[in-house]
Amino acid sequence: MDPIIVEAGVLARALEESLREAGASDESVEACVRALMHASLLGVDSHGARLVAHYCRVLKGGRVNPRPAVKLTRTGPAAAMLDGDDGLGHLTAYRAAEAAVEIARESGVGAVGATRSSHFGAAGAYARAIAEAGMVGFATTNADSIVALFGSAKAFHGTNPLAFAAPVAGASRPWLLDMATSSIPQNRVLLYRSLGRELPENVAADAAGVPTRDAQAAEMLLPLGGADYGFKGAALAGVATLFSAILTGATLDHAFIPMVGSQDIATPRGMGHFVLAIDPARFGGTAVFEAGMRAYLDALRASPAAEGAGPILAPGDREWAVEAERRANGVPIDPDTAAFLRLS
Amino acid sequence: MDPIIVEAGVLARALEESLREAGASDESVEACVRALMHASLLGVDSHGARLVAHYCRVLKGGRVNPRPAVKLTRTGPAAAMLDGDDGLGHLTAYRAAEAAVEIARESGVGAVGATRSSHFGAAGAYARAIAEAGMVGFATTNADSIVALFGSAKAFHGTNPLAFAAPVAGASRPWLLDMATSSIPQNRVLLYRSLGRELPENVAADAAGVPTRDAQAAEMLLPLGGADYGFKGAALAGVATLFSAILTGATLDHAFIPMVGSQDIATPRGMGHFVLAIDPARFGGTAVFEAGMRAYLDALRASPAAEGAGPILAPGDREWAVEAERRANGVPIDPDTAAFLRLS
Repeated sequence: MDPIIVEAGVLARALEESLREAGASDESVEACVRALMHASLLGVDSHGARLVAHYCRVLKGGRVNPRPAVKLTRTGPAAAMLDGDDGLGHLTAYRAAEAAVEIARESGVGAVGATRSSHFGAAGAYARAIAEAGMVGFATTNADSIVALFGSAKAFHGTNPLAFAAPVAGASRPWLLDMATSSIPQNRVLLYRSLGRELPENVAADAAGVPTRDAQAAEMLLPLGGADYGFKGAALAGVATLFSAILTGATLDHAFIPMVGSQDIATPRGMGHFVLAIDPARFGGTAVFEAGMRAYLDALRASPAAEGAGPILAPGDREWAVEAERRANGVPIDPDTAAFLRLS
Repeated sequence: MDPIIVEAGVLARALEESLREAGASDESVEACVRALMHASLLGVDSHGARLVAHYCRVLKGGRVNPRPAVKLTRTGPAAAMLDGDDGLGHLTAYRAAEAAVEIARESGVGAVGATRSSHFGAAGAYARAIAEAGMVGFATTNADSIVALFGSAKAFHGTNPLAFAAPVAGASRPWLLDMATSSIPQNRVLLYRSLGRELPENVAADAAGVPTRDAQAAEMLLPLGGADYGFKGAALAGVATLFSAILTGATLDHAFIPMVGSQDIATPRGMGHFVLAIDPARFGGTAVFEAGMRAYLDALRASPAAEGAGPILAPGDREWAVEAERRANGVPIDPDTAAFLRLS
């Protein structure tokens, strides 16, 4: 079935209402809607509105605390830990990002490790929040095992995203990178399965760890870098785990209760995240940073395209164009989610 | 011609002597030899002893200051800038790493931006130094344009490495990732050219930006992720530039005087680097970190191998095995470098 096109404001209100009905506190609702709208407007549909039914289910089931008392503990001039009280990861992560910015304003750099959190949607939402405060932002999380190690026959890491963002003077939107450390997201496999399409080469493997293009047979993803350079993607997934789980003491990828498909929706999953804010004022200075960013982006966008390729884009350019289009024309919502939100 | 096998201590002394002859100060020699031996022992031969002739040439030519007065300016409780005084990048970067550790000891996190530096060899040397001080380390630099943007017909970024390291309790060597954000290093192209071998697919392009497997025709590298996902590698190269050059105010990739092949070996190149140290004691705590790292590595190394693949390795495992072998049996040195060092 075709998606239903929903005006952004209407979608945000519907998300808000459904989360409120599931018992979420005002601040939890606000953070979750903000993160879901970030993803839905930017075209990251896997991490947007379609997750709301899942979040409502785990809020009602007890896995996620609908009214958490998030607690920040400052552990040093540049560091803090944040206890998410098993609430929605979006609230934990936005609070962590805000604290990192505040700390960086004082100290030049602010790093916040978060524990007792849950799925936080798109990592880019939190890197973006830091960039919107005028700083360079980094946000990461680990996630359920679904990506094989390089040369392995079994899933080990999650799709473990690395997100970076940086403010661009004179532009309303930051430079924004939000990448999974697998080549493709799990959602692509599910989509290709339903469409009966073949997967690209070297992005997924069957239950025995043998690369397959058959979306039905795909049981795990392969790390960024494919058959020859997948050791790099696997190591970058490890960076996400190192910062989010090992530094913070949160759950390792292979030890998570599965996000989806587990009978247990009452036990908290104990996720960790990590965010970092860096204030350009304490390095080369704000003016130098702004000029450098501008010179860099101008040179990048002026690069000649290869034959048959479109214009050269900076990270985020494609997403901000989707946002402008969707703000004007509405957001496509899959039929199941539209029904859940009573929009169809 | 076959490489010459040189005992590690003999090699280190020969490197020391040649740099001293080129006029380098004691601390410059020490830092450079340490970084070159890191790379040569770990099997990163592209960034090891073979660079010494180049370094001596630019030390004598005036591009690199043989007796720099490196200057650290603390800009905040968690931040500092380091002026390399146009000396060898190895000295700048080790000083930056030491300062980052000292700052992180006080503040939980320490970030140091370096400017007026030069080629620093392998980024992993500095992340390793931070891990050896008991902290999580990150080190990066930008470099001369040689890697095309995704879909572009022209080189833009350097091979811009990202290096991360983390201490492993009870092990003498850290977890260590040191990766170029291109699929392969430029050195591989040169090697395949001399061997008349075909390149792998989607790692290099000809002068028109068209992917080629002909090492002779290869004029630029392609970013990690290949034909389909190269936007990720290109964005990660941008992360290196963002931290090393834009935050610090140093030279952008496309604006460098070429490291090799320029007539001008008298003008400093104004390179920037960035290092970050994170003290686990200020996040989940040292005991939690040590236990988490151990649990993570045990699970990783116990992962089943895919059919035909070797045992599963953590980042650094392969390199530390090479180090042990080379410490026992000597380091292979290419004939030109061996002649330069008067070892052949």
